[in-house]
Amino acid sequence: MNTYILLIEGKDEQGLINKITSTIFAQGLNIVLNDEFVEKENQRFFMRSKCTGSVNIDEIVSELKRSLPNGFKITFIPQRKKDIIVMVTKEHHCLADLLIRHEFNKLNARICCVIGNRPGLQSLVNKFQIPFYHVTHLNKTREDHESAILKIIEEHNPDYIILAKYMRILSPNFVKLFPNKIINIHHSFLPAFIGANPYEQAFYRGVKIIGATSHFVTAEIDEGPIITQEVVSISHKHSIEDMKQVGQDAEILALSKALKSVLEDRVFVSGNKTIIFS
Amino acid sequence: MNTYILLIEGKDEQGLINKITSTIFAQGLNIVLNDEFVEKENQRFFMRSKCTGSVNIDEIVSELKRSLPNGFKITFIPQRKKDIIVMVTKEHHCLADLLIRHEFNKLNARICCVIGNRPGLQSLVNKFQIPFYHVTHLNKTREDHESAILKIIEEHNPDYIILAKYMRILSPNFVKLFPNKIINIHHSFLPAFIGANPYEQAFYRGVKIIGATSHFVTAEIDEGPIITQEVVSISHKHSIEDMKQVGQDAEILALSKALKSVLEDRVFVSGNKTIIFS
Amino acid sequence: MNTYILLIEGKDEQGLINKITSTIFAQGLNIVLNDEFVEKENQRFFMRSKCTGSVNIDEIVSELKRSLPNGFKITFIPQRKKDIIVMVTKEHHCLADLLIRHEFNKLNARICCVIGNRPGLQSLVNKFQIPFYHVTHLNKTREDHESAILKIIEEHNPDYIILAKYMRILSPNFVKLFPNKIINIHHSFLPAFIGANPYEQAFYRGVKIIGATSHFVTAEIDEGPIITQEVVSISHKHSIEDMKQVGQDAEILALSKALKSVLEDRVFVSGNKTIIFS
Amino acid sequence: MNTYILLIEGKDEQGLINKITSTIFAQGLNIVLNDEFVEKENQRFFMRSKCTGSVNIDEIVSELKRSLPNGFKITFIPQRKKDIIVMVTKEHHCLADLLIRHEFNKLNARICCVIGNRPGLQSLVNKFQIPFYHVTHLNKTREDHESAILKIIEEHNPDYIILAKYMRILSPNFVKLFPNKIINIHHSFLPAFIGANPYEQAFYRGVKIIGATSHFVTAEIDEGPIITQEVVSISHKHSIEDMKQVGQDAEILALSKALKSVLEDRVFVSGNKTIIFS
Repeated sequence: MNTYILLIEGKDEQGLINKITSTIFAQGLNIVLNDEFVEKENQRFFMRSKCTGSVNIDEIVSELKRSLPNGFKITFIPQRKKDIIVMVTKEHHCLADLLIRHEFNKLNARICCVIGNRPGLQSLVNKFQIPFYHVTHLNKTREDHESAILKIIEEHNPDYIILAKYMRILSPNFVKLFPNKIINIHHSFLPAFIGANPYEQAFYRGVKIIGATSHFVTAEIDEGPIITQEVVSISHKHSIEDMKQVGQDAEILALSKALKSVLEDRVFVSGNKTIIFS
Repeated sequence: MNTYILLIEGKDEQGLINKITSTIFAQGLNIVLNDEFVEKENQRFFMRSKCTGSVNIDEIVSELKRSLPNGFKITFIPQRKKDIIVMVTKEHHCLADLLIRHEFNKLNARICCVIGNRPGLQSLVNKFQIPFYHVTHLNKTREDHESAILKIIEEHNPDYIILAKYMRILSPNFVKLFPNKIINIHHSFLPAFIGANPYEQAFYRGVKIIGATSHFVTAEIDEGPIITQEVVSISHKHSIEDMKQVGQDAEILALSKALKSVLEDRVFVSGNKTIIFS
Repeated sequence: MNTYILLIEGKDEQGLINKITSTIFAQGLNIVLNDEFVEKENQRFFMRSKCTGSVNIDEIVSELKRSLPNGFKITFIPQRKKDIIVMVTKEHHCLADLLIRHEFNKLNARICCVIGNRPGLQSLVNKFQIPFYHVTHLNKTREDHESAILKIIEEHNPDYIILAKYMRILSPNFVKLFPNKIINIHHSFLPAFIGANPYEQAFYRGVKIIGATSHFVTAEIDEGPIITQEVVSISHKHSIEDMKQVGQDAEILALSKALKSVLEDRVFVSGNKTIIFS
Repeated sequence: MNTYILLIEGKDEQGLINKITSTIFAQGLNIVLNDEFVEKENQRFFMRSKCTGSVNIDEIVSELKRSLPNGFKITFIPQRKKDIIVMVTKEHHCLADLLIRHEFNKLNARICCVIGNRPGLQSLVNKFQIPFYHVTHLNKTREDHESAILKIIEEHNPDYIILAKYMRILSPNFVKLFPNKIINIHHSFLPAFIGANPYEQAFYRGVKIIGATSHFVTAEIDEGPIITQEVVSISHKHSIEDMKQVGQDAEILALSKALKSVLEDRVFVSGNKTIIFS
């Protein structure tokens, strides 16, 4: 008995659920969990099923293709731990949270390695017997720096790349290689305070709530599909430094919740938005 | 073209969704929204579909009965505004919120009347052209008091009875007449501070968060299935009176969110728990 | 025995609290509550005291002036209910909340009147025996429209003007007449989604949390000092209309909390930020 | 120039702030931050000041004693990092959070050692070069087990003992030795679900929000003064195991926020309640 995840998206029309569940049922699979959503503004249908049984994957996919209209995207995969690479700069908090969850088998992923453009977090990573690659950006063109990073990524072939406070902007060429596969944590409640130093921006604007946003990375900086957002109340008593401190707790939560959804194959991307089944 | 709500619950087994959607599909209905849930601890299946089309209700129900195992509970109803009766004592805030939503067509229900065991809220209710019945409990046995209330309820035959800060305990005999039809708002985060004066209890316990709970009323006081809970942070600076004030905002929200779910037929009751589709 | 509020702000230096409390003490006043804050980035001192006793106000102010360095702003006022004017357009929810709190003596203010540039909310306001002025903007220049509004305001001489979903932009000339006296509720989590249709903007950006912001109105639209912010979690299931509905509950709370602080003289404005004592 | 924390509590009366600030001012200290609170139900005065300067501690304490009525509790201490001991059983999450904060100098405390009644967390602790003592309770009387623990504690003489998911009940005799010095994290929203297995209790009660509570330990289990509480929304979809997972994030936050307040000397205990200056 295996557990499979079925992801289907396509143009909405009458009877889709019935067609899909008939096919699944005919193959002897049992649906454990089922979620559907129709995005009304563009009549798009999304469905995720968790099934148990023992089937030939190619066969079920071709059966589903046959039963559905052309143009449907069908993914049928065994449920499995994903492989991820974590990229960092200087700040430790999100990385540390991932390392601890990984160490105690709560991450639902295998951390292949950590890549840092600064060397400072190496000793933390090494405590957990995970390889750390220091790939400095100093004295390198962006292109050369990204090539060096790419070489490591290709070696490990991860399912996802996690920017856990990686503070360099990735080039559109780099991003294009990993569509909906790079996940960032931005330290503001997007779209407020895009760009550098969001806590300083928030301090001088005098907001009463700050936040953190985890999103897929696209060529437009801080504009990719949002996965999770977390907020924290603050007051006039909070200095920029205080805001950073309480904001970091929100960053940790936003990133770890986003990863939980993504790693369990519960996130669809539709245009610049996400559909997340719970 | 009508909109219907289909609610199904019964013992879980393989293929249920397929059987149900086949039947719906065969009747020419279109599923707009579909939610399922299997309660694992007792292998119980719950499904809610919103369908559009034009069908014979009796026919579709008998078709569904035929396709499903014995013992399934099947409800198939046209989507419609529900009728409610609101019961109050002295406090105005939840009642006022319902009256305002009703007045501006945001409640998804028709308030048939308001019953108060105190007369104080009559003038508020009358502003909105809704009948107010003052049924005093003074100099009456509980039985006589409840009989007088029952007479009014029977006249209006509401779908739900809303206890919007009704501060008298209803007898088990009364409650028994309206299973899963009476909705209460309790001014604490249940099961903390059951019974009288929860804000005083919270004050003396020194909690840092207070709450409100909306639940179905059962014979056990404050023990019925919980529909919604809301919380508010407090500090040592809050007096009992301050806690009441901020708590009332939580009460309003908890009750109005609970009603929204119930009135849209999105709430199943399973034992002492609720399953709420969003 | 009266209750007074003392508000002091000025350049920070050593010994201020001692000087102030000595003066208060010498006048026979008892400090019931005391809050101080020093804004570090510009070395500015803020203090609010609630005192009880019976004193000559002019005398205590001149004593305080004598004991403090030049340039201090000293306000010493008896605690009293404030007078407010509420301005609206079409949406009822914030207005209704204020009317209900007012009716049940929970607002800590007297609503002198409501001014609407649309007539639709008149019947709601009239239920509560409060004057409603319909001042249409149709076929009028902005200047003429604002003059007509000003005439009503001057008649009532309110302490504060509350824009409870007033959907017209006030001219800088108008705003200038009431510095830190006009309070707005904006239906987004500022500075995200400044300007028109924030819920549409939020929908298309795909955010997972929406919010509401209450702020003082300045000549720059949506840029004034923020008083309170409230947020609500949403998902891909929320249509723009759903977001408006849940957003309105956040708007009600943000505005009513902001008013509570302002009407109790607990809000200082420093540059574009607020300092709010709890 | 040193930074000092002054903590004063006693029976409230007129002029206390003035007396205290006069004394501080006369000693040449500058008040950087000042908070006062009067607990009305028992007329008790609490004040915390952060001062800078260079003084003789004994002298300022005796000056303060002289200026204040008898019976006042006066604490005047240099601001410094506190020493703590962490006690654990099997669960890693709160301990790991403290270790990471400690490692990156964000804890405002020195972890002297970790004591576990189970050996499982030793390898985690050792990664951070902190001593781990495994003191098994197996085959020992409660008295003997606590004696062994006490010996280690006495060696390190910590300011606070942190129960980071230590799952054994400490005897009243043990607790009595460390009044307001032992801090626990309980995995429920107290006073709901006191005792064992709160997530199971919450699951079967069908609550919609779960929580975590950090509190000082007293002889009454789960009844000590509450420092912080955190909550998380859940739904019918959450299994007991899911609740544990999301609850752990709340536990981490509740404990780390409680420690932040306690370690910065911002927490007073009054009877069974805490007064926490922000």
